[in-house]
Amino acid sequence: MKQLTVDLDERSYPIYIGEALLGQSALLHSHIPGKTALIVSNETVAPLYLSKVSAMLSGVRHQSVVLPDGEEYKNLGVLNQIYDACLSHRLDRNTTIIALGGGVVGDMAGFAAASYQRGVNLIQIPTTLLSQVDSSVGGKTGVNHALGKNMIGAFYQPRAVIADTDTLNTLPERELSAGLAEIIKYGLIRERGFFDWLDANLDALLRRDPVALAHAIEVSCQTKAEIVAADERESGQRALLNLGHTFGHAIENGMGYGQWLHGEAVGAGICMAARMSQQLGWLGQADCDATIAQVARARLPIHAPAEIDVDPFIERMAVDKKVIDGVLRLVLMKAIGEAVVSTDYSEAQLRTAIESSYA
Amino acid sequence: MKQLTVDLDERSYPIYIGEALLGQSALLHSHIPGKTALIVSNETVAPLYLSKVSAMLSGVRHQSVVLPDGEEYKNLGVLNQIYDACLSHRLDRNTTIIALGGGVVGDMAGFAAASYQRGVNLIQIPTTLLSQVDSSVGGKTGVNHALGKNMIGAFYQPRAVIADTDTLNTLPERELSAGLAEIIKYGLIRERGFFDWLDANLDALLRRDPVALAHAIEVSCQTKAEIVAADERESGQRALLNLGHTFGHAIENGMGYGQWLHGEAVGAGICMAARMSQQLGWLGQADCDATIAQVARARLPIHAPAEIDVDPFIERMAVDKKVIDGVLRLVLMKAIGEAVVSTDYSEAQLRTAIESSYA
Repeated sequence: MKQLTVDLDERSYPIYIGEALLGQSALLHSHIPGKTALIVSNETVAPLYLSKVSAMLSGVRHQSVVLPDGEEYKNLGVLNQIYDACLSHRLDRNTTIIALGGGVVGDMAGFAAASYQRGVNLIQIPTTLLSQVDSSVGGKTGVNHALGKNMIGAFYQPRAVIADTDTLNTLPERELSAGLAEIIKYGLIRERGFFDWLDANLDALLRRDPVALAHAIEVSCQTKAEIVAADERESGQRALLNLGHTFGHAIENGMGYGQWLHGEAVGAGICMAARMSQQLGWLGQADCDATIAQVARARLPIHAPAEIDVDPFIERMAVDKKVIDGVLRLVLMKAIGEAVVSTDYSEAQLRTAIESSYA
Repeated sequence: MKQLTVDLDERSYPIYIGEALLGQSALLHSHIPGKTALIVSNETVAPLYLSKVSAMLSGVRHQSVVLPDGEEYKNLGVLNQIYDACLSHRLDRNTTIIALGGGVVGDMAGFAAASYQRGVNLIQIPTTLLSQVDSSVGGKTGVNHALGKNMIGAFYQPRAVIADTDTLNTLPERELSAGLAEIIKYGLIRERGFFDWLDANLDALLRRDPVALAHAIEVSCQTKAEIVAADERESGQRALLNLGHTFGHAIENGMGYGQWLHGEAVGAGICMAARMSQQLGWLGQADCDATIAQVARARLPIHAPAEIDVDPFIERMAVDKKVIDGVLRLVLMKAIGEAVVSTDYSEAQLRTAIESSYA
């Protein structure tokens, strides 16, 4: 078992990564301060792992709530099902909410924990590659609004994250690739060496080689943990983590939540950011090509969807949270391993980049 | 104009108290960092003061959202109207939400500010006596759930509080008394001298004497600010601020939100806490009588409502947030000016206290 620490002073917490962690009852118990808990999961994950987690909770009065599966259910109405469960079981402010599932479950259970009785304990048990490398680190929680993704939420840190790599054995191929999109991102924004390691090990990752997966998860979590520790509230360098995400959010939002997986949209978004960076003269053609090739090898889309024309695409980008006083800050690339946050581009250049990104 | 500071390190903020503050545009502008703002008010307050606040915002692109008036509208559905306004006006994370109204508006606008885009700036402009002395200090925000009051929310500090005492001139008598309940509370929990001052000045307060009101608001805010600064997340002495509130919440909840004003329920709740403290042998009979007499002089109810029988009353108390692992912590009194948080009582004693509190 590997253990990292996200260093946030009194809100610091450990991330455990390894095989068979869902059998380690003491590990879970050590992060539950009270006598009650609520497991939040979804219809896909609950049949696979809910009984395992429930068995780990002997001695803790616990219930579970099983949400419908999918980004389209990440809204205030479904969130209210978690509050209903908390209140009908009379859980008090010393209770622990355990998020068992992918990013959607983690985001919703996390926001419920942030807001139920103004904040209760939270433990994340991510069961997808995407959530293990990304959404379980950094404390972002929330739900979508009809007019924008993740528009309602909170920064709220868990007490612990337990990433059991065994859970990846049941992951559909498409979701495995979606997780790889975020892993690829870390090489691009900060770690040329990790980009090269990924180029050498991408086939192993796609074969779900456990050693390769554990290393990729560890490096990704470690990199994100370092960035988050330096900038918890996303005022500065943390914004680099959004490489590909502003383009990606426009795709997810424009196609309708649940049509493209988040990681798929990020994959295409990374390619769009690379193309725009190349067109601005910031990124060499070879690095641009290598970036797009790595995304493609991970079996991710590299083009903007034909269904979203340029104008609505720009329109969708303009409601992104990265807009400050009307100016859209984009994460672009100076090289592989060196991303920057920039407003140093014209709308015409953005338009050209989008136009050149259709298949 | 009086100015206090709530000292919470990087989340510290000023409270301004005085007459004609809604004419001071520069005061408001100095706490707005971005280029946009959203005023949140309700149907009662907006016709009186919205245009004044809007006039103060020249140069800031701003909109307003006017909510229905009443505790019964403090729920997730109405909260969503604020999110709708934020998104339809494309307000970004650098926007400022301005709460203009009483406690309900402050709680809802505050939680919207805490959760919109994971947190935007917040300015509180409380227009009732209750919200000026109480809910604008301490950062508690949130909405009710059908199964419990204030069950969904966040601790979130405003950037500034502007308490214009002129707004109290339009306040209904019943709401003036409701505000006095919280003011009386401060004398009881910590300041015997303030209790005596109130005894001498209660008639002046009921006549809305501006000098007396300003003093009462200042002492209440100062006392609360000191307690909150020492205990931002309500783990220790901050719980003393809940004197009368656990009984009061059971009354509000049992009667249906909006039937009793919050301050009215707190007034009766204070009397119930005093009676129970006396029955436990902790509070002298004279202090108990003086407490109840002061509440009565403020034209507040001093009895539990006949509509709620003992069993449902206890049932309602048991879902209060002060329950930790099944044990209900009550705020009780050792003397006037000395409240304590205690679990040192039996259910039979609680039952007796409630039984003796009906008219």
